[in-house]
Amino acid sequence: MTKENQFTEIHQVTYYETDLTGQVTLAMLVDMAVLASYDQAEALGVGTQTMLKQGLGWVITQYEMQIIRLPRDREQLSITTEAVSNDRYFANRQFFVRDIDGNLLVHIKAVYVVMDLMARKMIAIPEAIIAPYQAPNVKRIPRLARPQKITTDETLITNDYHVRYFDLDTNHHVNNARYFDWLLDPLGEDFLTNHRLQHVTIRFENEVRYGHTITSAVTTPQIVDGAIATKHRIMGNDEAKDQTYAEAELTWLVAETVDEPV
Amino acid sequence: MTKENQFTEIHQVTYYETDLTGQVTLAMLVDMAVLASYDQAEALGVGTQTMLKQGLGWVITQYEMQIIRLPRDREQLSITTEAVSNDRYFANRQFFVRDIDGNLLVHIKAVYVVMDLMARKMIAIPEAIIAPYQAPNVKRIPRLARPQKITTDETLITNDYHVRYFDLDTNHHVNNARYFDWLLDPLGEDFLTNHRLQHVTIRFENEVRYGHTITSAVTTPQIVDGAIATKHRIMGNDEAKDQTYAEAELTWLVAETVDEPV
Repeated sequence: MTKENQFTEIHQVTYYETDLTGQVTLAMLVDMAVLASYDQAEALGVGTQTMLKQGLGWVITQYEMQIIRLPRDREQLSITTEAVSNDRYFANRQFFVRDIDGNLLVHIKAVYVVMDLMARKMIAIPEAIIAPYQAPNVKRIPRLARPQKITTDETLITNDYHVRYFDLDTNHHVNNARYFDWLLDPLGEDFLTNHRLQHVTIRFENEVRYGHTITSAVTTPQIVDGAIATKHRIMGNDEAKDQTYAEAELTWLVAETVDEPV
Repeated sequence: MTKENQFTEIHQVTYYETDLTGQVTLAMLVDMAVLASYDQAEALGVGTQTMLKQGLGWVITQYEMQIIRLPRDREQLSITTEAVSNDRYFANRQFFVRDIDGNLLVHIKAVYVVMDLMARKMIAIPEAIIAPYQAPNVKRIPRLARPQKITTDETLITNDYHVRYFDLDTNHHVNNARYFDWLLDPLGEDFLTNHRLQHVTIRFENEVRYGHTITSAVTTPQIVDGAIATKHRIMGNDEAKDQTYAEAELTWLVAETVDEPV
């Protein structure tokens, strides 16, 4: 099953990667997945330091996730990342998070682009940093599902969040994973402890910067095709409400029983 | 060197446990230390689940930390926790965070108490849950250094923080470690990237609850005995400013060079 463009590592879940239900948070799940892609890059000699020396960094613009169940505190996971294919500007990557018996828990698809960190703009992917992955070069990578946009007639729950020092990563950018905490928090404890996440699509549109205050808006949960759906928008606050930083669409199932922590 | 009341585990630092300088955040450092004490409890058959079944939980009321240097991204650490001694109500515990060569990086002293989770009050430590640690039972444990209080004439930098869903732990309490992010954030990127933490004393006075908004107040940094000192208070916001949740005192050194991530 091992392919040249795949990389697998073991990760033991800690309590501080989980929420009050003892399940891994979406932000930490994404952090763990991205860690595997960093480690693959290191192993191939095209890690973060090599990229930084050229003033470059990978940025994730989109995710699509299928969640069978979220990993739990103390669980040992195998996390596989695979460089699927790439075109001139975009690289498709997927992740498989499995339990110790090899059962698939989460499948994530992602779109990566290369940023010129000084100019803060996207560039064509340099051959030298993509070739080591041995993924097929294609004319145009398949696009991921796009989240449905919130329409003007929908009722919204909103909350404001100030970007904090500890939200910043070594590129002085807000870590993408932090958006998931902002997305979910307005739904509140009652909803979040009584529902389990099933599917996520998210698109990152613009960069949130240090010192910004953002508004996280979410539609009141609605039944769509038998599933509970929420649509999300991370936007500027007050007079900057036209600015969209990210849009997402999540589907949920009622959590019939709260899982016992293992 | 191994004592019966000691427990050591290895921890590999991940990028998402570090800040933009590539050093472990104070919140994550405390999370890692507490993980070692949880794992010691599990190994001794008095882990979280055993405690929960009796409606009990350990709560940390005070820390004192000496920081030689903070661990860095990808570094492999050995974390030793030791049950030092206990009296009727308080248990003294210490932690040694060492690098792969055995050099001490951080020394932490902590005071633990047992909470009745339903009544939300402190109780005498039950013999059955403390005996397995084989720490000496003393008349009165040594007290830790107390943070200096902020005086009314001092200039303060303040910021408000709303308690979020993901700040809660499995006891539905705010994870103690979250206080460190609130404490430090008002100091801002310029101060935080140009100073390195040397010493911390913190006392947790009252429990912050979900839905609360707190104010984190910090004195403008001052030179005290040759070190740069900041005094901190986490308090209620607006009309609840009399409420103190935690007080802390930190000392800093100027970071002469920014460390290269390893």
